[in-house]
Amino acid sequence: MKEHKHKHKAPLVSYSIVLIGSGNVAGHLGYALKKAGHKIVQVYSPTLANAEVLANEFECGFTNKLNNISTDAQLYIVCIKDDAIPSVTKKLKLKQGIIVHTAGSVDSEVLKSVSKNYGVLYPLQTFSKTKKVKFKHIPLFIEANNSATLNLLRNVAQSISRNVIPLNSEQRKSVHVAAVFACNFTNHLLKISQDILAKNKIPFNVLKPLITETIEKAFEMGPSRAQTGPAIRSDRQVIVEHEALLEKDTEALFLYKALTKSIIKSRKK
Amino acid sequence: MKEHKHKHKAPLVSYSIVLIGSGNVAGHLGYALKKAGHKIVQVYSPTLANAEVLANEFECGFTNKLNNISTDAQLYIVCIKDDAIPSVTKKLKLKQGIIVHTAGSVDSEVLKSVSKNYGVLYPLQTFSKTKKVKFKHIPLFIEANNSATLNLLRNVAQSISRNVIPLNSEQRKSVHVAAVFACNFTNHLLKISQDILAKNKIPFNVLKPLITETIEKAFEMGPSRAQTGPAIRSDRQVIVEHEALLEKDTEALFLYKALTKSIIKSRKK
Repeated sequence: MKEHKHKHKAPLVSYSIVLIGSGNVAGHLGYALKKAGHKIVQVYSPTLANAEVLANEFECGFTNKLNNISTDAQLYIVCIKDDAIPSVTKKLKLKQGIIVHTAGSVDSEVLKSVSKNYGVLYPLQTFSKTKKVKFKHIPLFIEANNSATLNLLRNVAQSISRNVIPLNSEQRKSVHVAAVFACNFTNHLLKISQDILAKNKIPFNVLKPLITETIEKAFEMGPSRAQTGPAIRSDRQVIVEHEALLEKDTEALFLYKALTKSIIKSRKK
Repeated sequence: MKEHKHKHKAPLVSYSIVLIGSGNVAGHLGYALKKAGHKIVQVYSPTLANAEVLANEFECGFTNKLNNISTDAQLYIVCIKDDAIPSVTKKLKLKQGIIVHTAGSVDSEVLKSVSKNYGVLYPLQTFSKTKKVKFKHIPLFIEANNSATLNLLRNVAQSISRNVIPLNSEQRKSVHVAAVFACNFTNHLLKISQDILAKNKIPFNVLKPLITETIEKAFEMGPSRAQTGPAIRSDRQVIVEHEALLEKDTEALFLYKALTKSIIKSRKK
């Protein structure tokens, strides 16, 4: 018998899920999970009003007390600030559910005391309150302390994204550092650009076509081959002129020199 | 009488144009100008074969001798390396045509001796040999030494782009510096990200959804408000861990520290 050509969605196994946290990650992730057919059973937040807002959206229970957290859900997703994870989770003791956090740089071992099944579900995206996010293409990195847990996590992750990748903690941390360069640092460079333009009464959006093309090229031909500009050409004349232009802008000048130096070095390799 | 609601294209004035240079800018710009109805009459390149390739595309003459350049065209567009502009153009003497260069950081005055009508047509984009570029949304910055020249330049520029902006040399140079931050430096950060991922056997394209969202957010809400990450949160714990992770990667560590420092400073303002 021939395979069917059109795609079948895998029959969905619906899991019961508790969200620990009520920020942007909890909101966006919870929304995607509910839409995929899972049941959000409870939202915890230390601020009751925040838990309630999200719980209303998911039509589920909510609490601001750790010992009121339901203990018989299948999956607990911790979406709180990195440094709050140990203190919040150490007060939890699950019967058998799986507990995962969503942080890029926190060891999964931090959840060891909570349940015999633990892991990580790390979505590589920047979430804002107001902007909808489509999970379908967002990489979800998963990690678990045993294969049954990894399988369940994979099922849950694949129900919202086509880009589910198992990684160990070491790899995940390196993804997080790479993301800081590609997202946080890039955004800061855009801020510097905006400031330079503003001083000369030029609107920031003149840069948009250039940046869009820069990103496209980097992914099409790889950033090494795509590198252009005075630094990679070792064009001293332009570099000196740019440095003179930035003379009074200590911060921008400092970064201009640092990045130019780094590009020239990378060329010599 | 009511205005017509649908857009009329302004009736095109077709100009005769000589391209001085045969690189990516000459190719893409010439292609767009020809498509808009202008007549490319000649291509100059010191390397005859390069001039010929482009001339075949534009069905026009070509030469590798400066004194063979036709002197009765209306517009001469110089698309060569910044530091070659003075030496190439000083050998030219036009009867009355307009000469412009396309560089971000070169004074328009460098063309003063060539014609009484001179200026700049600076397209803010990164051009590659193989990748087609749509000029419609590319900002074209124009500058001229008199208003008749500026008007002609505006006509030519508006025939290929909806984003034509007159700027003086000072402003144009600041656009160029801003573009170095937003394009060249950003691309270098992507290279660092790719290297970090490669060392951990993770494909570069996992970063694409994150970067796309980062750029969209920066233009929607402004990069200051869009800034996220350990530096802006002053999250020492994560910063120290990242620095430890980059310990053996001198170049990445150097930039991590420089950019983190700069973000923390910008926050204190």
